[in-house]
Amino acid sequence: MSTDVAADGRRTFKLTLAYDGAAYQGWQRQPGRATIQERVEAAVCAVTGEQAAVHASGRTDAGVHALGQVAHVRARWRLPPETLLRALNANLPEDVAVRRAEEAPAAFHARRDARRKTYFYQVYVGPDRHPFWRRFALHLRRPPDVRAMRAAAAMLTGRRDFRSFVAHAGAREDTVRTLYFLRVLDARCGLRIFACADGFLQHMVRALAGTLLQVGAGRAPPAAVREILAARDRGAAPASLPPHGLFLWRVDY
Amino acid sequence: MSTDVAADGRRTFKLTLAYDGAAYQGWQRQPGRATIQERVEAAVCAVTGEQAAVHASGRTDAGVHALGQVAHVRARWRLPPETLLRALNANLPEDVAVRRAEEAPAAFHARRDARRKTYFYQVYVGPDRHPFWRRFALHLRRPPDVRAMRAAAAMLTGRRDFRSFVAHAGAREDTVRTLYFLRVLDARCGLRIFACADGFLQHMVRALAGTLLQVGAGRAPPAAVREILAARDRGAAPASLPPHGLFLWRVDY
Repeated sequence: MSTDVAADGRRTFKLTLAYDGAAYQGWQRQPGRATIQERVEAAVCAVTGEQAAVHASGRTDAGVHALGQVAHVRARWRLPPETLLRALNANLPEDVAVRRAEEAPAAFHARRDARRKTYFYQVYVGPDRHPFWRRFALHLRRPPDVRAMRAAAAMLTGRRDFRSFVAHAGAREDTVRTLYFLRVLDARCGLRIFACADGFLQHMVRALAGTLLQVGAGRAPPAAVREILAARDRGAAPASLPPHGLFLWRVDY
Repeated sequence: MSTDVAADGRRTFKLTLAYDGAAYQGWQRQPGRATIQERVEAAVCAVTGEQAAVHASGRTDAGVHALGQVAHVRARWRLPPETLLRALNANLPEDVAVRRAEEAPAAFHARRDARRKTYFYQVYVGPDRHPFWRRFALHLRRPPDVRAMRAAAAMLTGRRDFRSFVAHAGAREDTVRTLYFLRVLDARCGLRIFACADGFLQHMVRALAGTLLQVGAGRAPPAAVREILAARDRGAAPASLPPHGLFLWRVDY
């Protein structure tokens, strides 16, 4: 990757971040609230002595986790990116960490340049609750019908209008996205529902996962998702799942 | 398993418990402190209306976790054990759960009848800290030499005097135990060190794991563990590892 130093001496760094979202009101800075962005910007300020905005590939909602959120920052920093990584981690709380730091072209923009994002939603399946999953997975008592979920998932992928799966969409907002895949992985203690798209609308992954779980519970046939899509109305789809099972897994450029 | 009802109408229940130990001062009840035992006994009292002692297979220290701690309680309870399980879980905090409840013979005793216990100590290996491992694993920046650790582990198994691995042992205390196995498992993101014995002394697993990691870091050759064992002196062995990586995995009867 070629690198640039801007006329003002600033370099652009691409940061890959992991965070446990439980204690935060999401990514985006909000006055008087604990947010990931505010924590990362405070660490950048502590390390570089400058107030610099840190832009992520997208906001994650309150309570949502990340394993591979990507953000960029433009800073006057002359040492190698690895040194920046160490310095930032020394100034971040324990539940937020920079996992990778790379120098990027001056024009790199974490949000605008993102080509696709992948989230997963984690479900713990067992008759009784489990102390080690409670913060990172939805608890289902009965195993869902994974085959039915997969049949429904296949009908949701592709380039579609996902208006029925958006928390709040203005009438003129473009709610068409390309869902590259929606996969249900059977893990040892539950499920992981992976969703990969060129972009996600607010609450979209949680609404898609909630819809698949309704199908998995036998409360709707797989084909019902066609009608939900066609309705283009949030009221047509089941409720969104809670945030604590959701992980932003990776962002591709 | 045959079951008995004692003359006082009490039945004996074997409970298998999981807990996230982070918020607790260990298993054992202590006045004015949050302990697992106190929480479980409070749940038993809420459910049965009686104050009954809940005896575990052994104490776990402050901050130590459990996936399969076993305890027994004698209570006047006429419904099936599954109903007791549900009722207890409804009265336990989120970080403690009964995973299994079974009726046991009247004489069953979780500590005295335990034949062997297995713990594992979890280590996350990576150049930078990880927000999702911080509460459940020790962080090592460099991968240890697993082969050397395994060579050392082989010299520690068997019936031996583990005095060098005990936090506080009186001169007359019996510190001989049989270590059935001490295994180093290479997992995707780190290691798990499993230790199975007929009983463990205070801090013994954490001292054994700490010793293996010293060998793995090249600070001592595997054969050094023979001298440590022979010394019969806590000062001869490396420091115990912190509690948050330790899990009581299972107890066999």
